[in-house]
Amino acid sequence: MLKNDLILRTIRGEKTERTPVWLMRQAGRILPEYRAVRNALSGFKELVETPALAAEVTIQPVDILQVDAAIIFSDILVIPEAMGLKYEMVEKRGPHFPETIKSKADVNKLKVAMAEDVHYTIDAIKLTKKELNGRVPLIGFAGAPWTIFAYMIEGGGSKTFSKARAMLYTDPELSHQLLQMITDSTINYLKGQIAAGADLVQIFDSWAGILSPAQYEIFSLKYIKQICDAIDEVPKTVFAKDAYFARKWFNDINCQTVGLDWCMDIGETRKIIKDKTLQGNLDPCALYGSNESIKIAVKSMIDQFGPTRHIANLGHGVYPDTDPEKVKYFVECVKELSRC
Amino acid sequence: MLKNDLILRTIRGEKTERTPVWLMRQAGRILPEYRAVRNALSGFKELVETPALAAEVTIQPVDILQVDAAIIFSDILVIPEAMGLKYEMVEKRGPHFPETIKSKADVNKLKVAMAEDVHYTIDAIKLTKKELNGRVPLIGFAGAPWTIFAYMIEGGGSKTFSKARAMLYTDPELSHQLLQMITDSTINYLKGQIAAGADLVQIFDSWAGILSPAQYEIFSLKYIKQICDAIDEVPKTVFAKDAYFARKWFNDINCQTVGLDWCMDIGETRKIIKDKTLQGNLDPCALYGSNESIKIAVKSMIDQFGPTRHIANLGHGVYPDTDPEKVKYFVECVKELSRC
Repeated sequence: MLKNDLILRTIRGEKTERTPVWLMRQAGRILPEYRAVRNALSGFKELVETPALAAEVTIQPVDILQVDAAIIFSDILVIPEAMGLKYEMVEKRGPHFPETIKSKADVNKLKVAMAEDVHYTIDAIKLTKKELNGRVPLIGFAGAPWTIFAYMIEGGGSKTFSKARAMLYTDPELSHQLLQMITDSTINYLKGQIAAGADLVQIFDSWAGILSPAQYEIFSLKYIKQICDAIDEVPKTVFAKDAYFARKWFNDINCQTVGLDWCMDIGETRKIIKDKTLQGNLDPCALYGSNESIKIAVKSMIDQFGPTRHIANLGHGVYPDTDPEKVKYFVECVKELSRC
Repeated sequence: MLKNDLILRTIRGEKTERTPVWLMRQAGRILPEYRAVRNALSGFKELVETPALAAEVTIQPVDILQVDAAIIFSDILVIPEAMGLKYEMVEKRGPHFPETIKSKADVNKLKVAMAEDVHYTIDAIKLTKKELNGRVPLIGFAGAPWTIFAYMIEGGGSKTFSKARAMLYTDPELSHQLLQMITDSTINYLKGQIAAGADLVQIFDSWAGILSPAQYEIFSLKYIKQICDAIDEVPKTVFAKDAYFARKWFNDINCQTVGLDWCMDIGETRKIIKDKTLQGNLDPCALYGSNESIKIAVKSMIDQFGPTRHIANLGHGVYPDTDPEKVKYFVECVKELSRC
């Protein structure tokens, strides 16, 4: 049914004709074609909530960058909103929650979200699948419960997320109550995405790296495991940025692929995560370099990962001011240099 | 000469009567006594540049928190300023450089700083030593060249420091030229601090963790090594936040102590860094918890590090909104629980 199923075959550990490639944040900000759609709207959230336009910008990088997967254009913060905590996306500053979670009363006002509560993304997936017509797989996604929790307590981005981390010490019981509600909501949401057509799903633990290993195991890993165990329909990828200490645990959880950031040594990670596919991990800043230096960096990455069980990507979302021509060149280099 | 030389004996690997303790950022923001001094001034930089007041706030935590060392009140960004790049400290927002380094012409306008260019900190050290009168050792410090470079290119704090990291790809030669100038300035500055009376020095690589291991080795480790090799007069501590991958290299460099952030597993680090003293690494957020939970966390830390070659500290600077009573309790717990 899929014309290009390279990623799915790579996830299964099959030998493929070349390494598949896509980029985190490929749908969006780097493409002038995206900005043309975006600038006609009131803001980022209007784009997330308008299925026809979300589908359009989801497909743009497949056409323009020639990547091997689409990832639905949405935001991890649709889940807190669906649970009852509204947020705003402030231009150039990031997300802002006018109300944050401070007490048990605040948690008790929230509900466990259902997929229908995020109907716009579910509809966007259906539309995208139809318009993609099997050209490449469509990736669904959600934030890891700890990362969502961090935003709900902190109220926005933060260098330290010290309020969110403080709650783990001051009220571990309430923390677990909220994390469980986020987890249940996320399972409902991902199952809805899969029913709508997502061919695989990725869980983003963007703020994984600010917890001590002991706290990560209790307050993040536990809930990622629940999600992975609840989803059996499609392959799952876990990307926990900066959580180098968690790799030994990810080896044993019920997911097929683990994402690496650019600080994680590839050879070392292969030794820790033995029988899964790895995804990543070029430094996004490498794309500021010359074509020559990009080619050298891609070759080094391809050589280190080897020809199987690797989905090429950056080690983080592509940075907003990256030249789209450099992104195209990155994609071409992966295709050329990995061909068997 | 020093009445309390616990830290120096611990650095030498001697068995001591208990584990020494101090806190990164102990001089400053958490203490009402600090804020009283600070609020009478025009800003943070006036305090840094007024030796009598810098000495006063340096000594405050020795009196109030009963820590085993003082660390001179200053700022890592005095070095770029001494090299010719002025900065402002914007209240609640952090440092801002009106001009940044973009080209070879910009680098060529800078000079290698001498200790006299930071005379206010040198004078503050002399005053502090006199007023401390040997009660505890005084720690001098500087930023690691990569961290200073990152601010000089970026112009301030950043989530990604993508401009600074981009320059490593787009102009590695110019990057090395600037890093060498920062390194030479830092060596001059640290030697001046030592001549003025600093009993040991710490190098802070605050943005170590955003470089890939390969780039860290070339653009950061190389220069930290130069500094460690140039300073023979006093013991040296290297603290490279988030650079877990660098621990294997730190085992082999010419420093006596390595700082750990709270994500670094203690047992694992002891295996990697075999014959040096380790410093750290309680999660700063642990101090938001109850006394009971602080005691449990300190006990776990003390037990894991063991009775020798450990200087107790947090895994990062104490957070500004931490209750000073909790900090005192942390210090008391270390003293009580580590006593042999």
